[in-house]
Amino acid sequence: MQKTDSLFYLYLLAYYFSELNKKHTNISQMAKSLPKRSEDYSLWYNEIVKRADLAEHSAVRGCMVIKPYGYSIWEKMQAEIDRMFKETGHTNAYFPLFVPKSYLSKEADHVEGFAKECAVVTHYRLKNADDGSGVVVDPEAKLEEELIVRPTSETVIWNTYKNWIQSYRDLPILVNQWANVVRWEMRTRLFLRTAEFLWQEGHTAHATKGEAEAETKQMLDVYAEFAECFMAMPVIKGVKTESERFPGAVDTYCIEALMQDGKALQAGTSHFLGQNFAKAFDVRFAGMDGKVDYVWGTSWGVSTRLMGALIMAHSDDQGLVLPPKLAPIQVVIVPIYKTDEQLKSIRKVADQIRTELRSSGISIKFDDRDTQSPGWKFAEYELKGVPLRIAIGPRDIENGTVEIARRDTKEKATYQTSAVCDAIRGLLDEIQSNIYRKAFDFRSDLTTKVNTYDEFKEALDGKGGFVMAHWDGTVETEEKIKAETKATIRCIPMDQEEENGHCIYSGKPSKGRVVFARAY
Amino acid sequence: MQKTDSLFYLYLLAYYFSELNKKHTNISQMAKSLPKRSEDYSLWYNEIVKRADLAEHSAVRGCMVIKPYGYSIWEKMQAEIDRMFKETGHTNAYFPLFVPKSYLSKEADHVEGFAKECAVVTHYRLKNADDGSGVVVDPEAKLEEELIVRPTSETVIWNTYKNWIQSYRDLPILVNQWANVVRWEMRTRLFLRTAEFLWQEGHTAHATKGEAEAETKQMLDVYAEFAECFMAMPVIKGVKTESERFPGAVDTYCIEALMQDGKALQAGTSHFLGQNFAKAFDVRFAGMDGKVDYVWGTSWGVSTRLMGALIMAHSDDQGLVLPPKLAPIQVVIVPIYKTDEQLKSIRKVADQIRTELRSSGISIKFDDRDTQSPGWKFAEYELKGVPLRIAIGPRDIENGTVEIARRDTKEKATYQTSAVCDAIRGLLDEIQSNIYRKAFDFRSDLTTKVNTYDEFKEALDGKGGFVMAHWDGTVETEEKIKAETKATIRCIPMDQEEENGHCIYSGKPSKGRVVFARAY
Repeated sequence: MQKTDSLFYLYLLAYYFSELNKKHTNISQMAKSLPKRSEDYSLWYNEIVKRADLAEHSAVRGCMVIKPYGYSIWEKMQAEIDRMFKETGHTNAYFPLFVPKSYLSKEADHVEGFAKECAVVTHYRLKNADDGSGVVVDPEAKLEEELIVRPTSETVIWNTYKNWIQSYRDLPILVNQWANVVRWEMRTRLFLRTAEFLWQEGHTAHATKGEAEAETKQMLDVYAEFAECFMAMPVIKGVKTESERFPGAVDTYCIEALMQDGKALQAGTSHFLGQNFAKAFDVRFAGMDGKVDYVWGTSWGVSTRLMGALIMAHSDDQGLVLPPKLAPIQVVIVPIYKTDEQLKSIRKVADQIRTELRSSGISIKFDDRDTQSPGWKFAEYELKGVPLRIAIGPRDIENGTVEIARRDTKEKATYQTSAVCDAIRGLLDEIQSNIYRKAFDFRSDLTTKVNTYDEFKEALDGKGGFVMAHWDGTVETEEKIKAETKATIRCIPMDQEEENGHCIYSGKPSKGRVVFARAY
Repeated sequence: MQKTDSLFYLYLLAYYFSELNKKHTNISQMAKSLPKRSEDYSLWYNEIVKRADLAEHSAVRGCMVIKPYGYSIWEKMQAEIDRMFKETGHTNAYFPLFVPKSYLSKEADHVEGFAKECAVVTHYRLKNADDGSGVVVDPEAKLEEELIVRPTSETVIWNTYKNWIQSYRDLPILVNQWANVVRWEMRTRLFLRTAEFLWQEGHTAHATKGEAEAETKQMLDVYAEFAECFMAMPVIKGVKTESERFPGAVDTYCIEALMQDGKALQAGTSHFLGQNFAKAFDVRFAGMDGKVDYVWGTSWGVSTRLMGALIMAHSDDQGLVLPPKLAPIQVVIVPIYKTDEQLKSIRKVADQIRTELRSSGISIKFDDRDTQSPGWKFAEYELKGVPLRIAIGPRDIENGTVEIARRDTKEKATYQTSAVCDAIRGLLDEIQSNIYRKAFDFRSDLTTKVNTYDEFKEALDGKGGFVMAHWDGTVETEEKIKAETKATIRCIPMDQEEENGHCIYSGKPSKGRVVFARAY
């Protein structure tokens, strides 16, 4: 049996094996093209996540593995967000993974909100089973008080702040932490909803209500700026209704984005906590006037859910479309050659381009692997969302040109080699604006003002998207609309004019429209 | 009552309150100077960690809070280490926090090593107690299989690699993860030994034994370079004896550093895993020749323990001494003034210096707070280890000079303002080398070659430090020496000549000296 033959049989075996074990998911992985968004949006999303090497399900229920390529996008996000936090005066710190059960209970709404979906540590040791069957939990190593794997860290942090704060001089405290958290979700989806996820959680403490409110809004602005300027994803800033508020907050502000299937996605939240956690943990300070009062708090977070938003906001049926500012590889150079001599000439040009672009801080990869064809590479980098692809062939070398293809519009154009670096800098900016504009126009098309409940349902079931409607301000109406249409109030938008109208459901008076949508 | 009076009484009250509640720890916190290393090294360490705002114990047993200043040093470490990993071809990824109990059991030594100290998640929900006493674990939400909070991730990762690796084309896999891990230590110390700690864990997979061994050694070199060039801490590279080997490894390589109390500290480890985890998780690949074999593995890690090493390697009785390359603030400017006019002139000079130094990437802080005296600030930045302090007073303004004080030698010198930036660049380099040299000389002084067991015990009980002695290579001898002297074999050093001798304990022949020490 020849080498090629044995490899062939091995692949055949691997193929059957994967079919047997993984059923339909792997069949489509082996097919060349992605499912179409228009045919099965949900499957399209799952397949992009898998095939662009972003993430996969782990053997632990609801927990994901973030693969190297996916993680490198998350690292780019982290770096920008972290920079923005530091520019607004925040520092990072780290607080324990575990929350004692009694802490969670100190704020009534908070425990109500998180107790039903948490991982509980009850023991601290395993031992060999008496019957030799393996290791079992050692019943003698039971914790006196159970520990909850943090679903969020308000309780642990406010318990710490209690010792950090005595007087107004200790305020404000502007701290952020990058961490993993666990919420025992029953239905999970990669990036969008997982039992464990990565996030940042800011927790600040202030001497006055006004300062805490300003901080809450400032951080919402930071999130909106990040979403729009880096993710190229337009967002609506607004306030959540009572039923969607963070457990323990006085007000929850959010940014809401629209995905290509017309569903909304909450991309970040910033909470004004009032004095709720200060009261729960008895955190008081002496003011400049000597008076003792409870401290005012905020908390705010974005998570790996942003990865899901990024994927769904821009990508197409060929794969990921990444905004240049968050693309781990911004430019890829693919050589097209037959002889070693040709590759050598191409490499010389590629090296020049690489050197110049790298000095401008542009990340560029030269893929000269001889194990894959140029066509395979084109498809691969399309799938992975690399914003610009440069192809250089022998004819280009003769002419002193290169061909550049844009991932967003798929347009190709030929440039003089001498002008290529300037062109690339310009194109990267253009792609960044273009995909923002595209997402913005899409959202405009899918935003509908309605004045009756029939119009409301028609808009939702028709094109979907954001439906701007009057609401009477009651939880009852909100719940009925949700039960009947699956649409929720995404937020009460912050930047809108007052407008008198009548609730589409109850007919009661309303002073402004709120944003309804079906949501992730 | 005047404002100042009421503040005074408030402080008095706060003082008594803290005394009542926190007993001796807070009394010493209020005292001006640190405990002396020579009098109580252990207390000195704890006090530096607390008073330089590095970390503190949390309310959760064994878990620490890393405070903003401490975390900013850790961030500097992370950034350099991460850069070095990427330069050697590694990428980051993220794997689940939880390890199913059955996974831990798949590698026999591994489970033996970690089962006795792990946090076990048994339930996924709390509920309200029937008697209204609060929340309790919901017995109906018991997991079918318990989950272990990862003490290290070999098992979860090799279970994932199984799906990533089919052929030699999929190798090598060079992945690192930055994560938190939990080992239920009974005796904890901030940074040095905590139940939860932060670390990075690299996990690589290779087609050949040689490649995996080379990777193991490469990463040890990366750690040694980081320790020496950034932490300014000399280390011995070596191999662990069988009894100190990582559970599941074929060989464990380590870097060992010496602390100022003469005790050794293991600062990083790199493990050659052979095919152990590949066999435990059935990870095989088809080679170029079509033959199927188990994959070869490595894993390697450093943790927030490095913070403890950094503190203990250089700091003195005035506080932290930080190597400039890891100092979050490299230079602080303290103005000395009486009038606003004076402050204004000083600020002008400070701004010039700041602008120039920042453009060289030097981090510099101008502390113009009027709530603290210059003397207080001097002590504070000494405590926090800021490498250079610039003082500028009215006389300096007149003379066109500034005074620069070095943290390491406490030398002060006056410089012309025009020459100050060059001077600072030079001084930062000099401090970096000086504290390395100091630590190197200290280690040389505390390294003793001994040829008899009496000499061995004398060296240990006398000056302590590293004791280089012949050993017969048996676990029995190692254990007896440990039981009798509390000294362990830190490593079999890599860079040493062969030397025939006789074991100090058994008298049996030996081919080289090993490094003994009492250790953290």
